[in-house]
This record gives sequence, C-alpha cells and structure tokens, in this order.
Amino acid sequence: MALLGIDLGGTKLALAVFDEKGSLQYHNKIPLKDATGKCVGNLITDQIAKVLSTGNYSISAVGISVPGIYRKKTGTVWAPNIDGWNDYPLLQEVKEVCKEIPVVIDSDRACYILGEAWMGNAKGCRDAIFLAVGTGIGAGIMIDGKVLRGSNDIAGAIGWMALTKPFSNDFIHCGCFEYFASGEGIANRTRQIIQDNKDYSGELTAKAIHEITSHDVFVAFENHDWLAKKVIKTAVECWGMAIANLVSLFNPEKIILGGGVFGPAISLIPAIKKEATKWAQPISITQVSVEPSALGNDAGVYGAGFLALKNSI
Amino acid sequence: MALLGIDLGGTKLALAVFDEKGSLQYHNKIPLKDATGKCVGNLITDQIAKVLSTGNYSISAVGISVPGIYRKKTGTVWAPNIDGWNDYPLLQEVKEVCKEIPVVIDSDRACYILGEAWMGNAKGCRDAIFLAVGTGIGAGIMIDGKVLRGSNDIAGAIGWMALTKPFSNDFIHCGCFEYFASGEGIANRTRQIIQDNKDYSGELTAKAIHEITSHDVFVAFENHDWLAKKVIKTAVECWGMAIANLVSLFNPEKIILGGGVFGPAISLIPAIKKEATKWAQPISITQVSVEPSALGNDAGVYGAGFLALKNSI
Repeated sequence: MALLGIDLGGTKLALAVFDEKGSLQYHNKIPLKDATGKCVGNLITDQIAKVLSTGNYSISAVGISVPGIYRKKTGTVWAPNIDGWNDYPLLQEVKEVCKEIPVVIDSDRACYILGEAWMGNAKGCRDAIFLAVGTGIGAGIMIDGKVLRGSNDIAGAIGWMALTKPFSNDFIHCGCFEYFASGEGIANRTRQIIQDNKDYSGELTAKAIHEITSHDVFVAFENHDWLAKKVIKTAVECWGMAIANLVSLFNPEKIILGGGVFGPAISLIPAIKKEATKWAQPISITQVSVEPSALGNDAGVYGAGFLALKNSI
Repeated sequence: MALLGIDLGGTKLALAVFDEKGSLQYHNKIPLKDATGKCVGNLITDQIAKVLSTGNYSISAVGISVPGIYRKKTGTVWAPNIDGWNDYPLLQEVKEVCKEIPVVIDSDRACYILGEAWMGNAKGCRDAIFLAVGTGIGAGIMIDGKVLRGSNDIAGAIGWMALTKPFSNDFIHCGCFEYFASGEGIANRTRQIIQDNKDYSGELTAKAIHEITSHDVFVAFENHDWLAKKVIKTAVECWGMAIANLVSLFNPEKIILGGGVFGPAISLIPAIKKEATKWAQPISITQVSVEPSALGNDAGVYGAGFLALKNSI
C-alpha cells in the first residue's frame, strides 16, 4: 500500500509518497511562482496525474493539506494567500484525476498535528495539539485521534484568543494573541516600541524600521538588547497563557510548538512552560509534555499522508 | 424502553426515569443530609434497587452524573464536596445492583451539556458547550455529539482560564477566571472592594461583610449600587472573553449558560455576547448562539438519562 500526501503552501507545493508505516518513498517540491486561481488547481492535478501514471507506486489514497480552511460539506477551500481561492472546488477537481482512489483534504493546522502524531513528537498520542506560530497563529487540535473541526470547519482559530484586558482596537484585524505573539506581531511590536523610544540606539536601528523581521528581534534578544527582550518577554507570557488555556480546556498529552517562530523560539520552551504552569489547572499541567515539532516544514506533508492512511482502510 | 438517570449533587440525590424520547416517567429527590463516604454509595445503590424492584419500568440502561471527576479507566469518582470520595469505586458498586443492565457515569459538567442537547436549549446540536457558573466554574464540551474528556478525564477546567495579566498569587487556588467571575469570586471581590473603600455606604453594608453572597451583589447591581456595578462589569468582561475563547477554539453551534449565577445573570447575556464579539474570531462568533439553560437544576439528571440512552443501543 502507498499513500500520496500533498502539502499546498503559500509559495510551494510539496508531494510525498509514503508506505503505510510512514516511510518516505518519493518526495518533490515545486515553487508556485506567481500562480493563482485555476493554475494552482491545475498544478496539483497535473502532479497527482504524474505520480499515478508512473506506475511506480500502488497509491491507495490521497491526502491534501491546504493553507486556510477546508469546507467539508462543499469540498471547497478558502486560502487567503492564493488569489481566486475564496471557495475553490479542489475536491471535485482532484477526484476527476484520482477516479476511484479516495481523496481527503484538511487545513494545514489539522495536518500538522496529524503528521506529528504519525511520525513526529506526538507519535502514539490520541490527544495532542500543534500550536503553529508563523506570520499568524493557528492550532491543530486532535481529540481521541480525530481532528477538531467545529460546526463550520473553523475550529482552532487560537490567534484570536483573548489574553489580557483592556480590549484594544489594534486587536480587531488579527486577534489579541496574534497581536503580541505571532511573527508579524513580534516585528510590529518592536517597530512600535522603537518609534515610541527615540533614544533607543541598539542593534535594531541597523535596518530601516519597516524591514525589521521577527528573526532580527530574536537575534537582538540573544544579544541581550533591552528592547528585543521586552518584546520577547511579552510573547513568552502570551505563549504561556495560551498553552495554559489549552491545557485547562483539553487536558492533552502533548502540545507541539511549530511554525517559523519555533524556530528561534525553541530555546524559550522551558520559560514558556514555567509561565503556563502559573496559570493552568494544576493537575492537568503535570500531565502534558510541551515539545518542539520534530518534522518542521514537513509536518504538513506527513499529515497529508496520514490523512490518506486513515481514509484508505 | 426506560432509562434511569441519577444526578448526585453536593447536597441531594435526584433520580428520574425517562422513556427514550426524554419524557419523564418518575422523579424523586433525596437530601444527602450529612452522609459521607460509603453511606452516599449505599444511598445510590439502595435507590437504584428500589426503582428496579418495583417492576414498573423496564430499565434498559442507567446513567449517573457525579459532582467532580469521573475516572473512566478505573470506574472511580473524585468528588471534592463528599468526604471520602477521593477515588470512590462507584461503577463497581452500582454494577453489583444493576447486574446485566449497562451503567455509565460522567461528570456533572458533561451531563449538563448532554441534558441540554437531549431536551434543552442545545437540542439537535452536535457541537455545543455548557458554561456552568456556580460556586466555581466548569465547562461541559460536546464535540460531534461526544463529550470531551481529555487524556486523563479533566478536560473543561475552564475556571483556570488565563484572561488578564499580570499573574497574581490570588489565582493560585482557583484560577484567574474563577477569581473574577464565579459566584464565590463575585462575593469575594465585593468584600475586598468594600474593605478597600471605607467611605462606601451603599446597600451592601447592610450585612456583615463575610455574609455577603453573589445573590446580594446582583440585587445591589439591579439597584444601581456603584460597587456592585464595578464587580459585575468585571465579571461580564471575563464571561465575554471566556466565551470568545471557546468560540475561537471550538467553533460551536451553541453556548449554554447555566449554574446558580445564570440565574440572576441571565439578563446580562446580551452584554456578555457584545463583549465576546469584540474578541472572538469574527466569522465564528456570528455562527454561535449564546443562550441560558432550559433545564436549570434538572440539566444533570436529564444528561444522566441521555448518557443511559446513548449506552442502551
């Protein structure tokens, strides 16, 4: 039995063929370049057709991870970073090329936790959560082996978590948690504090203010820059509080930290767990392990492979 | 087919027989008086034996709601308000009297949402949450028709939700959300503000300070007492933020507000929804309905009946 996993990102398409034990048989990455709308759909179906036509693998199911929301009832995808993908009929298009081979689609955050549960740091877990901190923040939540979808497929929107009063109009476009602790949030908070502190002359002044990235902030943090330390301290508090809330609500076995920010923030995990321990239900926090992603950028394609496996039986 | 639902509370035992459509055939309430430990267990088994021995009903399953945590793997109960119930072997004792009739046990918060889903305001829902605000705060969370248990049966401990920085040592014993917005939290915050405001001469001075209850605070709030308004305003903010977080994470169809505080706080639901709308994922909040409990004190016994129904097929 072979499983085809596909991970559509905002800038690239990754394909992988696995055996049922998760061993990688084939792997390929294709840049999207500036493809939009139907061209992205065609790229996916062409690549699937190519793998199927080689005859090298007996593909028994196809799984696809998409960067946004998968609407299960209609088989359509909302992907904010792909032009023309407000309600894209991906399931139908892929079914045409896959014919009798079953196809399953889910959101990237759902696939991240499935990937870690299959072949990463949540291996063997039934109740685990992937907290993906990149440009934005999302959570893939697995309960008793199944991904939480919600009544309309938008569960796990943890970037909107309310973590501190008072409400600010700055939270309207991204949510309180993202405002303070996403990659973009960290860069934006840094720029704001530089503008509010005209006498700041640290290393973050080396670049034009609008070019500062969260990566720059982490480098400055490692160099004990006070301004970077202030921004990262707030982010650590927010990550800790959010993890505490996941622990109190879900009582999971593991929380996996991934996305571009974990990455450089992996060294902060002990401080984050310490912060979470202050707030969380005191028994539940002793039952959870907080760990970095084992699969990194491949979590999505592994999760897509696991989606396929679950649907191939 | 008849179903026996049993709701063990901190001060009384309720029993009800339902048909499979949820229609009530028999109902009885028995005060626990000062019963503890094994006496409470005996009361439950005696009452079950009594219902079974009448021969009036053909009981096909028994469901039991317990005021604490039900440990599914061991069949034991932790009930903090019943002396000697740290790890009480309830399943085994009840099985002895029920013989071949199946028995299911779950926590009160799990039963509250099941009761509302069966015969109350969440009727027909697959994804709904009961937020129980009484002395403490807990949540019964139903996902695709099944109650969320977590890896060790303590999911839904929402009283520990982190809602505002900075962390205070006052949160250590009860959690941040409970500190500000449980019945006990509301009474305690009121007492504290009275002590901090020696010139306060409003209606809440009519009682000795340690005798003030959350009910007194709601009465003063209705009478526009400034101190009560201040305490309730904070509670409304916390209820709104907590509901926002449930909405962003779970994308539920309904959130049901119950427990002793809802009750008097029912009239505040529009203000709470308005607060939640500020913080929550903006699409998800339009898809949820926030409503009071339809079953009030009977939610637990109805939920126990529904537990039995689900296990009788």
